[in-house]
Amino acid sequence: MTDKIFERDIHTFGVEDGSFKTFVRLKPSFTFLCGVETVMEKIVNVKLRIIEVDGFDATDKLLSMIDGMNLNAVILGGITFAGFNIINPNKILNDMGIPVIVYSGNQPNNEKMLMALKKHFNDWKIRWDIIKNLGSVYIIKPHPFERPIFFEVVGASPEWAKTILHRLAIISRIPEPVRIAGIIARGLSSIF
Amino acid sequence: MTDKIFERDIHTFGVEDGSFKTFVRLKPSFTFLCGVETVMEKIVNVKLRIIEVDGFDATDKLLSMIDGMNLNAVILGGITFAGFNIINPNKILNDMGIPVIVYSGNQPNNEKMLMALKKHFNDWKIRWDIIKNLGSVYIIKPHPFERPIFFEVVGASPEWAKTILHRLAIISRIPEPVRIAGIIARGLSSIF
Repeated sequence: MTDKIFERDIHTFGVEDGSFKTFVRLKPSFTFLCGVETVMEKIVNVKLRIIEVDGFDATDKLLSMIDGMNLNAVILGGITFAGFNIINPNKILNDMGIPVIVYSGNQPNNEKMLMALKKHFNDWKIRWDIIKNLGSVYIIKPHPFERPIFFEVVGASPEWAKTILHRLAIISRIPEPVRIAGIIARGLSSIF
Repeated sequence: MTDKIFERDIHTFGVEDGSFKTFVRLKPSFTFLCGVETVMEKIVNVKLRIIEVDGFDATDKLLSMIDGMNLNAVILGGITFAGFNIINPNKILNDMGIPVIVYSGNQPNNEKMLMALKKHFNDWKIRWDIIKNLGSVYIIKPHPFERPIFFEVVGASPEWAKTILHRLAIISRIPEPVRIAGIIARGLSSIF
C-alpha cells in the first residue's frame, strides 16, 4: 500500500443519505444518496441517486456516481445508508483504485451492528463481512472546538486519512464534502 | 434607500433553476427551484421547491424558502425561471425587507423578452411590469479571468451590489450561492 502524493488541492467525493424523514414512501421504500465532489472545500459537482431502504444497491449506485472522476479519496458518511444498505469500501477501492475513508461522528458499535443484521437479514453474513473487513477504527480531533471523530480507511494509511480529515474539517469536524452532501440530502426532504 | 452595513460575513441566498433537461414531465410541466443559503462562500442550508414551467408561482415559492432567514441579500440567477415563471424582486423586498440582486451572465435583452411575453402570455403585461420596474442594468467584471456580468438591484445602491458581487466571485464570475444552486439543480436531473 503506497499513499498517493497529494496534488495541489485535495480532490474528494463525500457521500451522505437523506434522513428517515426524507424517505419517499413507495413500496419498497427509497431514499436519496447524495454525493458532492469537492476540490478542497469548493464544490465542483453534485450527484444524486435513489437507493432502496435496507436494500443492497448503494455500492453500485456510488460506483456509477464517481465513474470517470479523478479523486484522491471517497469519504463516506458512515458505512450504512438508507437503513442497512451497506456500501462496500473494498469494492470501490478494487474497481476504481480510489482509497475510501469511512467517517463517523460517533464511535462505531460493531457488536450492536452484528446483532441488528442477524435479526433483520437472511443475508446478514454478506453484509457483516463488509464491515468486518474494514480494519481498525481510529479516533482523531480534527476541529479544535468540536468532539473527536472516528474513521476507518481502505487503500491508504491511517496517517494519510488523518491528513485529509484534518484539512477538510473546515467549518466543523465533519469532512466538508460529507457535510454538504448531508445538507443537500436533507434539503430534498422539503419537496417530497 | 439606505445600504445596510455588512456584518462580519455576507449572508446571502442564491437562487437558480434546473435546466430544460431536468423537467419532470408531468402536465403541466414542473422543474426545480433551488436556493442555497451561504455565509460568504460557506453553505449553511439548501432549499428546494417545485415550480411550474411558464407558471407564476416562483415568487411565492421563494418567499416560503427564505422565511425567517436573516439575509443581507437575495441573489437571483436571472429574472425568469422554468421558462417565463418570473420572480418579482420588489415583492421580495417589500415583504421581507431584503435587497434583491438579479445576476445575469449575458446582457439582458428586454426587447426580446417583451416580444416573447406578448407572444405567449395573455397576462404579459403583469409579467412585463415586473421586469420594467427593475431599473438600470449595470455591468461589472468581478473575476479577473472571466467575462463581465450584468446585474439589476432593488432595495440597495448599485455600489453596494457591486461590493457583494465582487466578494462572491470566488471560484468564477458567478456569485457563489447562485453557482452552487445551479450545480444542485442540475444534479437533480440525474435521478429524474
